Amino acid sequence: MLIVQKYGGSSLASIEMIKNVANRVIKTRKQGNKVVVVVSAMGDTTDELIEKAYKITSSPNKRELDMLISTGEQISSALLSMAIHHEGYKAISLTGSQVGIITDTMHTKARIKGIDTKRIEKELSLDNIVIVCGFQGITVDEDITTLGRGGSDTTAIALASVLDAETCEIYTDVDGVYTGDPRIVKKAKKLDVISYDEMLEMASLGSVVLNLRAVEFAKKYGVVIHLRSSFNDKEGTIICEEVNIMEAPVVSEIASDENCTKITIVGVKDKPGIAGTIFSHLADKGINVDMIVQGASLDEKTNNISFTVTRDDMNESVNVLKGLLPKLSATEVIHDDNVAKVSMVGVGMRSHPGVAAKMFSLLGERNINIHMISTSEIKISCIVEKGKAVEAVRILHSGFGLE
Amino acid sequence: MLIVQKYGGSSLASIEMIKNVANRVIKTRKQGNKVVVVVSAMGDTTDELIEKAYKITSSPNKRELDMLISTGEQISSALLSMAIHHEGYKAISLTGSQVGIITDTMHTKARIKGIDTKRIEKELSLDNIVIVCGFQGITVDEDITTLGRGGSDTTAIALASVLDAETCEIYTDVDGVYTGDPRIVKKAKKLDVISYDEMLEMASLGSVVLNLRAVEFAKKYGVVIHLRSSFNDKEGTIICEEVNIMEAPVVSEIASDENCTKITIVGVKDKPGIAGTIFSHLADKGINVDMIVQGASLDEKTNNISFTVTRDDMNESVNVLKGLLPKLSATEVIHDDNVAKVSMVGVGMRSHPGVAAKMFSLLGERNINIHMISTSEIKISCIVEKGKAVEAVRILHSGFGLE
Repeated sequence: MLIVQKYGGSSLASIEMIKNVANRVIKTRKQGNKVVVVVSAMGDTTDELIEKAYKITSSPNKRELDMLISTGEQISSALLSMAIHHEGYKAISLTGSQVGIITDTMHTKARIKGIDTKRIEKELSLDNIVIVCGFQGITVDEDITTLGRGGSDTTAIALASVLDAETCEIYTDVDGVYTGDPRIVKKAKKLDVISYDEMLEMASLGSVVLNLRAVEFAKKYGVVIHLRSSFNDKEGTIICEEVNIMEAPVVSEIASDENCTKITIVGVKDKPGIAGTIFSHLADKGINVDMIVQGASLDEKTNNISFTVTRDDMNESVNVLKGLLPKLSATEVIHDDNVAKVSMVGVGMRSHPGVAAKMFSLLGERNINIHMISTSEIKISCIVEKGKAVEAVRILHSGFGLE
Repeated sequence: MLIVQKYGGSSLASIEMIKNVANRVIKTRKQGNKVVVVVSAMGDTTDELIEKAYKITSSPNKRELDMLISTGEQISSALLSMAIHHEGYKAISLTGSQVGIITDTMHTKARIKGIDTKRIEKELSLDNIVIVCGFQGITVDEDITTLGRGGSDTTAIALASVLDAETCEIYTDVDGVYTGDPRIVKKAKKLDVISYDEMLEMASLGSVVLNLRAVEFAKKYGVVIHLRSSFNDKEGTIICEEVNIMEAPVVSEIASDENCTKITIVGVKDKPGIAGTIFSHLADKGINVDMIVQGASLDEKTNNISFTVTRDDMNESVNVLKGLLPKLSATEVIHDDNVAKVSMVGVGMRSHPGVAAKMFSLLGERNINIHMISTSEIKISCIVEKGKAVEAVRILHSGFGLE
């Protein structure tokens, strides 16, 4: 069997931890499996490199930033390979370039366009454990790119797909997916299994263990993920198709995300094409917009449009929109970063009406004001005042009987 | 004019120093030149990475070691590029792989086989300052290699050659080539110009500012080197063909090198092919042998062969030779690391007989015992007890009137 394993930075934060990971990889190899390992950078390496860049300039060139931060995975992959050699097993580390992970040219947020499997297959046939630098790729012009947050998860799932791996084990510092953040909700429970769709909605909340794009990838290509801890041997949470899950609860998970800011464009002319203009300009800058709310037009002439972005993208978003104000005939752009998003996810919502109403009531009873609401088939998100987010999660976790 | 500039690790040891280098590069650009910059890793980065490897294993795989340490130059090149962008100039960093610096497969000591100039020329034509990661290349199979000590100098000179650069400026933390090490010989003087041949002999002494292979390259391809300090604007030392130097002194430089160990193979059968066997086995391991001395056979049957290698290579050399003992019918291998090499270099020696005799007399007068002697047309080296090396240099420096 071919198994893809991915180890995050917290599992590779020290020399000792790298040696532990080597032993875990070798254990899988000894069981007769071929193993492809995807690694993140050690501990806080990426942040430290980014910090260096910002000491030089407040707006580092993105191509150069990718050149810089891609070294983190190169270091951890080489060290892990050495640790495996030290135990008497064959291993080889490969950069994104050496594997042939081709991406588009959107530096710091690139998307994988294709993966060449020749080099990996050759190394596997030579009995090597193959260690791939996660998070990175290369453009057709050979410029180094990185895949953005959670990029190593995407690398692992994409490799599991193209190599037709049995499973993709994603090792992290938590035991699996919980019904709520155990730091906030003491009675949170670990889920044995969760569907791609629920995980996707959870991933879009930002604070969870698996990245949105990585889960999208897994769903699209049917890659079964086993999310588990690198610090113990417990089974984690399996992420797979909903059809394989016996009975889904109404609500699987409650979460909050403080990495969001609300931006409102005031007094937008109410005519066709305006929203398209706004969001295509943001997309051109690679800014991911999360919730979008457009209120009903009051005077039938102008309107307000609100949306949320991550804190990293706030300043750039505001700048883009200020430049667009004349074109939109809008009056001003306001932003608010004293907010947080509280969300509930569960495939059972489809067949249980009234979930949203109950959520709003529970929050209302505690005087938690709701600034924005956005719903999907299996998720409800509310923007609330940042200071109220923890309380909101606790109320909902107990109110929906997840304990 | 096209100028190649190389900055060593000591010129790039901090964010502030990288900014200074950026300004120096921009100054050259502003004078109307095209500039290709070759960088080493920041400060002690390479040593720190090697230290990490040795924390994992006492004998790190060399391919993986190259994968690891090549990240150092990638970091400094990206940061320097950002610093140049910050000042409003265009720049792009390129790895050895991106440039197309093709080497053989001798990891950690690879040799350049060819350089593709297409990418650099394209970037220069786009008005970019091109920043190349020194010290690294790539094999035809796309494995990352490094060029060994002084590798960034070699990269710079090789690029200056293939790009037909006007000059290759090598920036370091000293003002140029001195008649002796100023830390040992207080009255040492800076040389304005020195020939490739003298520099080659100096480089082979190990302790000097320019690497042997880099100078060989420069001589072979006629690249004029300007060796100078990145900390001031003083002219440094020009390294060029001897014919361009007006009057050469008898002795240009005296130096000592403590990074050497003496190895002796005792009781080698005195028959043809033995020396070839010994040194080809060492060469196969990529071990550079420096001085070789074979004494006259005393009993016409057996012989002792002594040679010197760097400290790094001592253990491996001794192991190789121990394995060869039966084949050589030799009795034992002994090694001595309590030695240092003291050398004098000067093209004037060719036309001035008696230089060697005077050197031995000066040392003898001070009771400094000579363990090994090796001479070339323009160099005389003696192995002496390590504790006597500094004294020997001082005696010779004043004895040959270099002050």
